[in-house]
Amino acid sequence: MVRLAISPRLRTSPYYEATLAAGMTDATIYNHMVMPTSYGDPAAEYHRLLEAVAVWDVACERQVEVVGADAARLVQYLCSRDLSTLQVGQARYVALCDHDGRLINDPVLLRLGEARFWLSLADSDVLLWVKAVAEESGFDVAVSEPDASPLAVQGPLAEDVVATLVGDWVRDLRYFWFGQHDLDGIPLLVARSGWSKQGGFELYLLDETRGTDLWDAVMEAGAPHGIGPGAPNHVERVESGLLSYGTDTYPDSNPFEAGLGRYVDVDVDVEFIGKAALRRIAAEGPRRTLTGLLVEGVVDSSQPLDRSIAVHAGDTVVGRLSAMVRSPRLGRTIALAQVETARLGDELRIPDGRMVVPTALPFV
Amino acid sequence: MVRLAISPRLRTSPYYEATLAAGMTDATIYNHMVMPTSYGDPAAEYHRLLEAVAVWDVACERQVEVVGADAARLVQYLCSRDLSTLQVGQARYVALCDHDGRLINDPVLLRLGEARFWLSLADSDVLLWVKAVAEESGFDVAVSEPDASPLAVQGPLAEDVVATLVGDWVRDLRYFWFGQHDLDGIPLLVARSGWSKQGGFELYLLDETRGTDLWDAVMEAGAPHGIGPGAPNHVERVESGLLSYGTDTYPDSNPFEAGLGRYVDVDVDVEFIGKAALRRIAAEGPRRTLTGLLVEGVVDSSQPLDRSIAVHAGDTVVGRLSAMVRSPRLGRTIALAQVETARLGDELRIPDGRMVVPTALPFV
Repeated sequence: MVRLAISPRLRTSPYYEATLAAGMTDATIYNHMVMPTSYGDPAAEYHRLLEAVAVWDVACERQVEVVGADAARLVQYLCSRDLSTLQVGQARYVALCDHDGRLINDPVLLRLGEARFWLSLADSDVLLWVKAVAEESGFDVAVSEPDASPLAVQGPLAEDVVATLVGDWVRDLRYFWFGQHDLDGIPLLVARSGWSKQGGFELYLLDETRGTDLWDAVMEAGAPHGIGPGAPNHVERVESGLLSYGTDTYPDSNPFEAGLGRYVDVDVDVEFIGKAALRRIAAEGPRRTLTGLLVEGVVDSSQPLDRSIAVHAGDTVVGRLSAMVRSPRLGRTIALAQVETARLGDELRIPDGRMVVPTALPFV
Repeated sequence: MVRLAISPRLRTSPYYEATLAAGMTDATIYNHMVMPTSYGDPAAEYHRLLEAVAVWDVACERQVEVVGADAARLVQYLCSRDLSTLQVGQARYVALCDHDGRLINDPVLLRLGEARFWLSLADSDVLLWVKAVAEESGFDVAVSEPDASPLAVQGPLAEDVVATLVGDWVRDLRYFWFGQHDLDGIPLLVARSGWSKQGGFELYLLDETRGTDLWDAVMEAGAPHGIGPGAPNHVERVESGLLSYGTDTYPDSNPFEAGLGRYVDVDVDVEFIGKAALRRIAAEGPRRTLTGLLVEGVVDSSQPLDRSIAVHAGDTVVGRLSAMVRSPRLGRTIALAQVETARLGDELRIPDGRMVVPTALPFV
């Protein structure tokens, strides 16, 4: 057991006080910010997400704002997905790649205006990337980090909670669309989105001084529905096959290897960073594949892996297993791994000798 | 007390096994990597650094390598310091700024060859920054992260330990110079450097599979000198006035505000990112100043601040205090803060009512 040394170098979530008060027991650092990972009862947190509703401090999903005359052109240049049909009020899951086609982030892109966009980030300093590209290549834009801190409300009863909070209009909000709302003076952007397959919303708080107020309002609206604190759920995300950038990817992974090939539009007539490399990779086929694995035996899901572990075919390392959990819904042990595509048909084992069998994602 | 959720998203230091075996109790995340911050006895760790020798896992000081025909030109373009006299085998502390003159990192730059450099980083993803600048502006270089993981040996007896380990040649190594060494098959770069004012070396391990071997070799060489595990020392660094990027700086801080003005060569005829903005700031004078503070009363240095705290002049917030410790050497409470330059002469207080008095750095 290692204590997290929380210090002023780490950025403070607007919900930090609320998460401490709610009994946060475990946390990680994500985009330089403390992100709670548990409140001490992983099983209850899983069931709350699957059967009721949970609130997650995901303020660490920091935003990069791009605004200005060249904003649409720059955002398309940054993203490997064709954005020509993206409308104001709509979001899209995108892959960001470097010039060699390596995945550097997998954000959600929100279009707030004709010439105003947010990239809602996974764990890497894309602000530096976007600033450098914009400045060095002369795009007429301003690039900054806005005051925007998502609070996720996830689970089958999330819609009832958020409708209680901001009104029934959210019931008509389609997946990956968003609207703005003033909650008794707390400015919000309300999106139907979130890093689970249980449905729900992300409330982007637009005034970082109001974190505890928003947390308390969500808790109050959710009380009749059994709401409680939680965090991006390790077990549910493996069952659902949701990619964790940096966990399931290598520093040199490309989007095809990460299971994001359908978000890479190499055959569409738009220019984006890494396109030539990605077209070549698409033609050759990815060298590695992100796959589900069925694992013999039982693991204690309350103790996630601290490091990835090797996947062997005979004496050869042919991949890395990045997550392994006991699935309550399947009643078996499941895992995610990147495995060399050519070895997916081999007999595969992990170092303790257990056999692992590739299977399609999602598990559930 | 919050547990650190160590997971495969966080990068593994080559010394991770060794630091667990040595009894790491506290850690933070730095450049996506677990960095130990204590082994459970902060007072002993401080005295070991001041009076003997300590070994620190600082593998999280990741490197960005720039190599190729345009390497020297690109590195100069990235750094606000004149590098025209930097020789092969020599390192230099530099400021990296964005196009508006905001500090984005304060690495140590090492020149490994005429056209080969490393930036040894503080906590931000400069690899993305350098790649974007190089590619978008057409520099003929390769940019990558090499297999190089520093292990610091710090304290007045560090030279004896490192000389025992790699030979007496290191006694002649000048400050911020380095050489290569093969330690019974463990490839090293040995630099006289480190984030303390107690003297010492950083051993850049060049084969990540040999972390435990190097750790054990250093411990064995240091045993007669009272070596023990430690970490970049919170108390010593405040006493010494060493900048912690991201702790003592704001996202919009410029190097003048961070006390790095002497590393910004706006009047030298070299081109670098942010130069025009930095020249303007230099002429106007920095709006904020990094200053030491003498603080009334006593604090428990074993419990560092979890967040920065406000500095007030009357009812107005005029700065942020980012570190506050009890100095054993001074027998008093000291702090670091960024304060509005124009308010340095005011009567300043922190929220608990204690008075704080600006004083020049370093304290010791």
